Amino acid sequence: MSNVDVIVVGAGLAGLAAARALVAAGRTVSVLEARDRVGGRTLGAELSNGVPVELGGQWVGPTQDAVIELIAELGLTSFPSYDDGAAITVVDGELIRYTDLSFGLRPESIAEVGRLWAELETLAATVRTAAPWHTDNAEELDRQTLDGWLVANTADEVACGFFRLLVPTLFSAESPELSLLHFLFYIKSGTSLATLVATTGGAQESRVSGGTHQICERMAADLGAAVRLNCVVRTIRQDEHGVVVDFEGGSVAAGRVIVAIPPTLAGRIRYVPALPALRDSLTQQMPAGSVIKFQIGYETPFWRDQGLSGFVLSMDDPFNVVFDNSPPDGSCGVLVGFLEGAHARTASTMSAAQRRERVLSALVKYFGRQAAQPFDLLEQDWNAEEFTRGCYGGRLAAGAWTSYGRELAAPVDRIHWAGAETSDIWNGYMDGAIRSGRRAAAEILADGAAPGPRSHVNGRRS
Amino acid sequence: MSNVDVIVVGAGLAGLAAARALVAAGRTVSVLEARDRVGGRTLGAELSNGVPVELGGQWVGPTQDAVIELIAELGLTSFPSYDDGAAITVVDGELIRYTDLSFGLRPESIAEVGRLWAELETLAATVRTAAPWHTDNAEELDRQTLDGWLVANTADEVACGFFRLLVPTLFSAESPELSLLHFLFYIKSGTSLATLVATTGGAQESRVSGGTHQICERMAADLGAAVRLNCVVRTIRQDEHGVVVDFEGGSVAAGRVIVAIPPTLAGRIRYVPALPALRDSLTQQMPAGSVIKFQIGYETPFWRDQGLSGFVLSMDDPFNVVFDNSPPDGSCGVLVGFLEGAHARTASTMSAAQRRERVLSALVKYFGRQAAQPFDLLEQDWNAEEFTRGCYGGRLAAGAWTSYGRELAAPVDRIHWAGAETSDIWNGYMDGAIRSGRRAAAEILADGAAPGPRSHVNGRRS
Repeated sequence: MSNVDVIVVGAGLAGLAAARALVAAGRTVSVLEARDRVGGRTLGAELSNGVPVELGGQWVGPTQDAVIELIAELGLTSFPSYDDGAAITVVDGELIRYTDLSFGLRPESIAEVGRLWAELETLAATVRTAAPWHTDNAEELDRQTLDGWLVANTADEVACGFFRLLVPTLFSAESPELSLLHFLFYIKSGTSLATLVATTGGAQESRVSGGTHQICERMAADLGAAVRLNCVVRTIRQDEHGVVVDFEGGSVAAGRVIVAIPPTLAGRIRYVPALPALRDSLTQQMPAGSVIKFQIGYETPFWRDQGLSGFVLSMDDPFNVVFDNSPPDGSCGVLVGFLEGAHARTASTMSAAQRRERVLSALVKYFGRQAAQPFDLLEQDWNAEEFTRGCYGGRLAAGAWTSYGRELAAPVDRIHWAGAETSDIWNGYMDGAIRSGRRAAAEILADGAAPGPRSHVNGRRS
Repeated sequence: MSNVDVIVVGAGLAGLAAARALVAAGRTVSVLEARDRVGGRTLGAELSNGVPVELGGQWVGPTQDAVIELIAELGLTSFPSYDDGAAITVVDGELIRYTDLSFGLRPESIAEVGRLWAELETLAATVRTAAPWHTDNAEELDRQTLDGWLVANTADEVACGFFRLLVPTLFSAESPELSLLHFLFYIKSGTSLATLVATTGGAQESRVSGGTHQICERMAADLGAAVRLNCVVRTIRQDEHGVVVDFEGGSVAAGRVIVAIPPTLAGRIRYVPALPALRDSLTQQMPAGSVIKFQIGYETPFWRDQGLSGFVLSMDDPFNVVFDNSPPDGSCGVLVGFLEGAHARTASTMSAAQRRERVLSALVKYFGRQAAQPFDLLEQDWNAEEFTRGCYGGRLAAGAWTSYGRELAAPVDRIHWAGAETSDIWNGYMDGAIRSGRRAAAEILADGAAPGPRSHVNGRRS
């Protein structure tokens, strides 16, 4: 059994950022990854013409300083997402092109959407993101679902429907499935709802040349043999001397462990001694969203010739959010789109051919018959992935923040928690994941030079 | 590695009832139980004077035919719960004695509670308990939380508060934490809300002499060596030949497996191949309630001398639901009560002494100073139990029944699901647990004589 200062469970952005920070501070680490790859919820792929696309997280934007700086530090570059021309909204059988901030809605609906939007931003501004349970009126905000709030606050069906469409694009979950407080916390953690939704000036502003999966790959390369693939962690034991992590095929000992996997997966590890009741209840209450991501390749970005940006929101179709995802040189056309929430669940039991038909028929509706003939179509169902079990991330339903929120990032003796869900800045995003890993590393480093007797005995591993 | 026809994971009521049915049909079974005892969410204990009490499920009532018949079949007897005299309701600092069906509420609140109650019973009557997702208007009923429905349907704060008090007594969860559809399904599965709440004529009508834990103990005794304790199941592998269950310390092979543990625990086992996305999502969305149960022993049932039944509901106190739980001969006095939902969570981080103080100060308020001096007090925090992780059972939050309900009892190839949460009759109760085990056994028996090649090779084990 090998020995290190700190074991990290999970080689996604959070785990690798934690390990990187610890190694930079002179600590030895062992990163245990269940998969045969690093990257977690980032995943690179190539269309059949060799153009790289992401099957997981792909965009970065302003105020995401942690990920932006890390991209530069690792020698990667970014480029702006394509955002010229008209967007499309589909509502009540009508396909509406627009170039303003109207989302293609009729004036009366725009006014109501604007009013609700402003009210949500105002409420969000009151949230204490570092401790949402201490927000003024937290109990009342947490008692309601976002859907309940919508129903209580508008009689405009189109405005309500618009938010019911927008919510899954952010959470891969439906508006009844999260509390108002969780929604408000989340949008404030990412600056504002406007920031989350926007391309230019927002969370979809930029892309990483070659793909975001390179962030993890380069961090892992720097860590070398400290990153161990195909290690499915099953049990974490701790006592006054240290911690032992058992995986299928071996064990590692350390002074501390950082569990940097989604909450629903963290709850499946066996802990000895068993975790406190509230911590266990938290992981029971933080299900992940449902999403199937599609990358569709065409010979050319033909929609641009029609003056279209490629951005679509449809209130009528399951495949209801689409972006232009072509390579920066426009050498071919790529559309990226999602089946989210209820639509992902319905589609998860279909055949791949049925899903392809569902996707392409929607694209033909949005962009014309040329959309029927992609040269390639890739799909990724994150809920079917044993070592993710849902994207974009874990959410908290009504009542959960005020009941269990305190447990989200609170260490349990020698166990520290990381992952995008534990960040109070850009919660659920790549940026938040990186911040969470660094925060967990900082917790350990702040505890001084005594992470536990085991590491003292065994010293540096290189 | 031993071989049997069917492996059962979990030696609670569901698992043992399944095993009993299979053995009765000539099949060989191996029941793997993680704990060093059988019984699951039933658990016997003794007060210091030797009087038996239950720290888990304890009551049975009319229409619970499965458990009532099994009690008789096993040679056990039952006796009526004590239900004479006045009950107490505490509201707004006032302690109200009542002997009618008023719950001690003021006439205007009674009328409003009655109206809401009737409306809930009417809605519940529309639920298709065998397939709640096919209920008329299922989407709309599932979109709302029970709390949202209450707020939308009454302006009477006392009536609303009364239901907010009642809900945790049934679910150990708060009204925002379950969907209206789940609430309606649950009360219909147990006949009616009136049946669930009542002592005489309802779910608290009778008790088992010596304790309900004997039901499992006697079933286990009949099964003999087929029940194996201290087997913590970690992985279930299946292929075209059969199923192999790995536990800490060994493995067993069979043609089929019945997983008869709460959904949140079923989701922690590793399955190879991995379970379908929707099934995994279901177990992410079915958190268990929070409850700490107390049994408090007194020299005499002194409250009876005051004309009190021992039944208390308090809208003012955390320890807010109490029953007389004295032995049938009244040879000593026992009160049973609960910290549920939010109150259980708050209390779970207190010291045992602090919880005792919280319980006894409430009992003094309800029954006078004699209540301050019990000869014994037992407590059981079910959320701290590694192999339960919450009682009374798993619940479904807004949106979950219509999204994932189909997965609750649907077999995944050779894996069948049992447990109180999977029953459409008396869901969440001991009766439902027994029915669910028999249903899972029947699924296997109905599949004919070919539960898989392994059992053909290995034959009977005795």
